Amino acid sequence: MTNGAKALMKTLVDAGIDVCFTNPGTSEMHFVAALDNEPGMRAVLALFEGVATGAADGYARMADKPAATLLHLGCGLGNGLANLHNARKGKVPVVNIVGDHATYHVQYDAQLQSDIETVARNVSPGFVRTSQTTDALCQDAAEAITAARGLPGQVATLILPADVSWGEGGKPCSVPPQPAAPIADDSAIQAAAEAMRAGKKTAILLGGRALREPALLAAARLAAHQGVTLFAETFPTRIERGAGLPPVERIAYLAELASLQLSEFSHLVLVDAKAPVSFFGYPGKPSYLVPETCQVHTLSTPEQDAAGSLNKLAEALGASGAEPMLQPASRPGLPKGKLTAEKVCRALGDLMPENSIIVDEAITSGLMLNALTAGAPRHDLLTLTGGAIGQGLPNAVGAAIACPERPVFALIGDGTAMYTIQALWTMAREKLNVTSIIFNNASYSILNVELERVGAEEAGLKARSQLDISGPVTDFAGLANSLGVHGIRVTTAEELVKAMKYAQESPGPHLIEAVVPESLNGIKRKVLPWLLKSLPSLPRPVTKALKKKIAP
Amino acid sequence: MTNGAKALMKTLVDAGIDVCFTNPGTSEMHFVAALDNEPGMRAVLALFEGVATGAADGYARMADKPAATLLHLGCGLGNGLANLHNARKGKVPVVNIVGDHATYHVQYDAQLQSDIETVARNVSPGFVRTSQTTDALCQDAAEAITAARGLPGQVATLILPADVSWGEGGKPCSVPPQPAAPIADDSAIQAAAEAMRAGKKTAILLGGRALREPALLAAARLAAHQGVTLFAETFPTRIERGAGLPPVERIAYLAELASLQLSEFSHLVLVDAKAPVSFFGYPGKPSYLVPETCQVHTLSTPEQDAAGSLNKLAEALGASGAEPMLQPASRPGLPKGKLTAEKVCRALGDLMPENSIIVDEAITSGLMLNALTAGAPRHDLLTLTGGAIGQGLPNAVGAAIACPERPVFALIGDGTAMYTIQALWTMAREKLNVTSIIFNNASYSILNVELERVGAEEAGLKARSQLDISGPVTDFAGLANSLGVHGIRVTTAEELVKAMKYAQESPGPHLIEAVVPESLNGIKRKVLPWLLKSLPSLPRPVTKALKKKIAP
Repeated sequence: MTNGAKALMKTLVDAGIDVCFTNPGTSEMHFVAALDNEPGMRAVLALFEGVATGAADGYARMADKPAATLLHLGCGLGNGLANLHNARKGKVPVVNIVGDHATYHVQYDAQLQSDIETVARNVSPGFVRTSQTTDALCQDAAEAITAARGLPGQVATLILPADVSWGEGGKPCSVPPQPAAPIADDSAIQAAAEAMRAGKKTAILLGGRALREPALLAAARLAAHQGVTLFAETFPTRIERGAGLPPVERIAYLAELASLQLSEFSHLVLVDAKAPVSFFGYPGKPSYLVPETCQVHTLSTPEQDAAGSLNKLAEALGASGAEPMLQPASRPGLPKGKLTAEKVCRALGDLMPENSIIVDEAITSGLMLNALTAGAPRHDLLTLTGGAIGQGLPNAVGAAIACPERPVFALIGDGTAMYTIQALWTMAREKLNVTSIIFNNASYSILNVELERVGAEEAGLKARSQLDISGPVTDFAGLANSLGVHGIRVTTAEELVKAMKYAQESPGPHLIEAVVPESLNGIKRKVLPWLLKSLPSLPRPVTKALKKKIAP
Repeated sequence: MTNGAKALMKTLVDAGIDVCFTNPGTSEMHFVAALDNEPGMRAVLALFEGVATGAADGYARMADKPAATLLHLGCGLGNGLANLHNARKGKVPVVNIVGDHATYHVQYDAQLQSDIETVARNVSPGFVRTSQTTDALCQDAAEAITAARGLPGQVATLILPADVSWGEGGKPCSVPPQPAAPIADDSAIQAAAEAMRAGKKTAILLGGRALREPALLAAARLAAHQGVTLFAETFPTRIERGAGLPPVERIAYLAELASLQLSEFSHLVLVDAKAPVSFFGYPGKPSYLVPETCQVHTLSTPEQDAAGSLNKLAEALGASGAEPMLQPASRPGLPKGKLTAEKVCRALGDLMPENSIIVDEAITSGLMLNALTAGAPRHDLLTLTGGAIGQGLPNAVGAAIACPERPVFALIGDGTAMYTIQALWTMAREKLNVTSIIFNNASYSILNVELERVGAEEAGLKARSQLDISGPVTDFAGLANSLGVHGIRVTTAEELVKAMKYAQESPGPHLIEAVVPESLNGIKRKVLPWLLKSLPSLPRPVTKALKKKIAP
């Protein structure tokens, strides 16, 4: 005989789910006790649920399989919701386990009682289930695992009442293997092929799994053969890039710029991506960013095999043998002098080793990141898929646990860092190979831009003070040290380079607080120059064409 | 002409809602811009939404009127959910404003799009509304305000789409005054009076508003006249206590102990309280803690006037002129030597000035707090109403803003402190008169008890490591300093006393990290001694009687 928790643990491990990011409470104590029954399960403790869920997200992005979470009732789920949202938007698989009161205890409406399912639906529209009996638990878990790693991946929430967990009679279940993703059908291939043969300007927008090497190579062959342009979605879940891989231009965050990028195309072919829309709605500006004159075709959906579909299209067009354009290796050179956000990106581009993982939540400070790391050695880039800030540091935790041999760089804005700063403690506890770089400009800089973009220019001092986090200025290096992470504050490029080299040579997590001016300082009240400034982050040929378009 | 945001701001201020705890994003920029239109509105920025919502909770507990929050879409609401849960369970009024995408933008399912209403229902079952037009906005807001400060108070969530906020044609609304709470009807009075006249052992359980002075005095007159025992609910929203006020014994957190407290009574009269239930369900232990032989009567509900109802009952029993027993003034004396959690509570009891506000989230370290502050000068105590940890530091922010002339002491466990540590920054920014005392025992100590209580005694090393937060040990003093709060670490009682005196004499927030052993160290694997140990925290006469009951 075994209790529910032990059977569940075995079901998870047998299905290959061998990492669990936890922030448990009383209702999860039997699950916690069962950890010692399964040597195959690694439990990683977080001091805040948003760290656990963000780590599960980052882990799955890099491991290509889900981790489990362990959260404490509705409030724990609430605390973890923002990063589960990012996972949902990135189609990342997560087996989200939320402890609950014993089934018979619910009626008493005790202090922590709340409606967990209603909260869970926000991030798990496809699978929310409260397991009702110990007998049914592992079957429920198996279905949650199947749902999570389905096509596409999703956050599947299994709610685990305490008595279902402690009850005897648990029966471990095996989980059927994942079916292979189907390739796009002939009609979709034909429509895309026709668009490309028509001779008008055509772009392929790659998202999701289409930003991994096999799909990128297929797309790059098409690009070389048909003269089409390759775009990546604005916030990739994971994009493989750097020297030796096909370079892809990302659709810009700013709707004004994204519209410009798309303005010259008559056909847009979607591969595991959706047609670009504005991040927010703005007064008098369109939400849908594809020009009216541009025809949109879906080659393959997130439920399908992106690489297989692109290869089939390449075959149909006779492009299978084409030579893809690959990014040549190039380093931007080390920066010097007073530090700026751009110089931080330059130093990273110059120093990052092969196989690095970059987690980008630098917001305005990361403006030049793409351009300055384009020719760096091959690496993976993870981004803010759902727009819910506080993703970066937890994502780095998960990525480092998924890939212990690879260096992880977390580039984080000061505002965003504070949402899940507790992640540093888990980095220290697990001795993770993460170098966090915090861009300290003492401002919610992006909101200064947004304040203007929404047309609220007349904002006064009280309004501006809501975007200003300079009183007090957070001492991130001190913060890191107090949480067990080696932290250092740098104000010059030379200090930064020294700190980065030290971090590379010394084990354990590091945090570098880069004191920088606001990237948009002085220009933030004039949006057009801001756009121009951000253009160099695009690959060069496109930049020149677009520059002509905007130049007065 | 005025836009929606400006009209909303005026509606709030005219209704007396003049503090807003904010963590805004792009969709809230017009609301932020409107701040400068209303000099009467104070906006308090938080670096994390859980701080904003917990501050709104603490503010309303002390100001007896709601503050507004300003949160950023579904993810911001998620981040703020746990402390809104605490407010909901404490029946605390909050006007919870959640920005949303422009109404026409929702269809595009942009990155931050999620189902906000479904999340909001978890904490706002009584009022969730997405305002659909600028024209209707202020009426919606007025209804939200009315709902929030209704009988009883609640979290009312108003979802504010960006275009409703920026649209022209906003019309400020006035909000009708709150109706007076009705007094219990004659049948309820009569039933309670009969129970008290029956001559059997009777207790009155006071909760909610019944723990304020007027109701406490009425209850104490009844107690003196009828020989009934007064209990307070386990986690009061706000209890007025100390020298000169009637002392009330709180129902214990541990179900085993609460059952003992209630075991001798034949009648239990509820006043703005519910019959005690166990915090969690435990294998083989009852959830409902009132003995089967005890009859429960409801004198007044949270919708009614507790003090008025108690006075009416006192009149019916001829107790109106009775002399209430009042707590005599007494200080426990200053502690000496190596620090323990008990000594911290002793130092507070000895040093706290008149009119202090104590926020208690010390969990196991606060075991002796009640006993050691019982005779201290009159003060208010706020507790963890909903069991969602991370409430204490944000509550202290709100309490300090509501009562700038009163010293606030936040007693916080190290585990719980880390959920909303960002509150320290807001304390520094707003120069709040808060002394936070962090009990650093490097453990989720309560979970070691709970692990045993749920019957998971066989827990191994991996399980235990999930409750152990000693690797690394957080440096809370360093953490405070890095967030702009004067922080100091103390390890002896003498250092603590010195630090507390310094904090009393110097303006601005302070943090004292009290390095203490686990309160339950060594005894945590034996629950009965643990119970005995916690008994002295009850008023003395009860303790003796109960001690006899448990003694072997």
